[in-house]
Amino acid sequence: MELWFTEYHKKGAGLTMKVRRTLWSRRSPYQEIDVLETENFGRMLVIDGLVMCTERDEFIYHEMMAHPALFLHRAPRDVLVIGGGDGGTVREVAKHGGVERIVLCEIDRMVLEAAKRFLPGLSNTLFSDKRVGIVEKDAVQYLQDKESAFDVVLVDSSDPVGPAKRLFQKEFFEMLKKTLRDDGIIVFQSESPFYDLDIIKNVNQYLKDVGFLNVNFYWAPVPTYPGGTWSWAMASNTYHPLQDFDEGAVNQQAVNQQMELRYYNSRVHLGAFCLPGFFQSALEQG
Amino acid sequence: MELWFTEYHKKGAGLTMKVRRTLWSRRSPYQEIDVLETENFGRMLVIDGLVMCTERDEFIYHEMMAHPALFLHRAPRDVLVIGGGDGGTVREVAKHGGVERIVLCEIDRMVLEAAKRFLPGLSNTLFSDKRVGIVEKDAVQYLQDKESAFDVVLVDSSDPVGPAKRLFQKEFFEMLKKTLRDDGIIVFQSESPFYDLDIIKNVNQYLKDVGFLNVNFYWAPVPTYPGGTWSWAMASNTYHPLQDFDEGAVNQQAVNQQMELRYYNSRVHLGAFCLPGFFQSALEQG
Repeated sequence: MELWFTEYHKKGAGLTMKVRRTLWSRRSPYQEIDVLETENFGRMLVIDGLVMCTERDEFIYHEMMAHPALFLHRAPRDVLVIGGGDGGTVREVAKHGGVERIVLCEIDRMVLEAAKRFLPGLSNTLFSDKRVGIVEKDAVQYLQDKESAFDVVLVDSSDPVGPAKRLFQKEFFEMLKKTLRDDGIIVFQSESPFYDLDIIKNVNQYLKDVGFLNVNFYWAPVPTYPGGTWSWAMASNTYHPLQDFDEGAVNQQAVNQQMELRYYNSRVHLGAFCLPGFFQSALEQG
Repeated sequence: MELWFTEYHKKGAGLTMKVRRTLWSRRSPYQEIDVLETENFGRMLVIDGLVMCTERDEFIYHEMMAHPALFLHRAPRDVLVIGGGDGGTVREVAKHGGVERIVLCEIDRMVLEAAKRFLPGLSNTLFSDKRVGIVEKDAVQYLQDKESAFDVVLVDSSDPVGPAKRLFQKEFFEMLKKTLRDDGIIVFQSESPFYDLDIIKNVNQYLKDVGFLNVNFYWAPVPTYPGGTWSWAMASNTYHPLQDFDEGAVNQQAVNQQMELRYYNSRVHLGAFCLPGFFQSALEQG
């Protein structure tokens, strides 16, 4: 018998992967959660039928979720990760020795449980690093009374269906702005530049509407995501991702702290913000 | 009835696309050639079961096949395209007004026929631009007596199975070097950085072995190719892709010649050579 899992994307296309077996399958109050053992991508976390991560290529997504902002900010001490219950983003944030506190706000306890049991390579830091605090709450609720509390906020949400839908609305961007310190940086995962330019345009507009001076998008390949390439929005009033990026200092910091990075480096940081015509035009059209 | 075409990649994964109908299906002396009408990617050329291009995302592949070298070289006059019978690369080369002669060397007449009949958006230039000469020959045979004949050589081959296999061997790189003028530039499509690092390493080694001083790789997303991202090698004794790249002049040239480019721009040129750790390490290991 051969098992194949297929995620059908929006545009009459899909990615299919050979599966050895299903390790776990649950329905939480929020969503359906499956952990599959694939033939060649290691273990794979699937939520509501959509690939959240595979052990083989998650390093790219998680490094690019965390490091562009954390290397750009001069002294990030308090970091908030919204979503990201698999722990991959927290693992990358924790590589920065200067970070004193990492809050992970994940609505779904069962995602944390799946990650703890089946994805230790992603979640170990989450459950062992003393700087990490886990908040099992809806981000909208958690942020109510958190004013100027964070230097960096990373929105590592699932797709804008199900519980993450509210995170793609303007009210949420206002909350994000309020919780960020004046010189803070927000990074927001903004879906596929090939399939979701409408979402990217919205995120761009919301970040500008709530008053951020610098709003820039970057991208990186993630082979198991729709279209094979993913995008992120970065917003800040203090930092411009290129003009304020100190390539030499970043390299020194990575060496000093003996960071193990497989995707991110200072050249990748600069290159990731170099967007092609069709992407740039979509942003300019608004 | 629903039709789905699936290309199975090396690593227990595949890309599946919804198909409306098969437009053409032939077996040439070299390979099996199919043209499919997909639901959302336009027409698709398939050779031996592998996606060669779709109307929807071919612009990225073909712009990145041609423009990095053609904008880097100060005065490219004679350009050779090896493979690329669909015409997409020639279409991009022809956008450069200074180019006086474009030779397309395609071994399989039936690919040319398929492109002419079903992919006019790719092949129109090939059959209408007076600067283009089509050579229906094996590249190894064609190059026998072509010494210092070209400023830019673009190897737009199919995958290293079937007729393109010989193009991925060291002898061929020696021939390429011989046919190139001293200040020329070679670009060689070098497969997927996620699935084919062994091929990439070989191409890197061959280009160095035959004596090129500058050998650099670049990459770009191509959603319908395995892994969703593709790579190219660039080799030259005169030009370094970043140090000798004149961003301002390139932008001016693109504006002056009213080039319609949807992917390539001078920022993309610089960004495409910024490789992540895992890719860079593979090149350094040799």
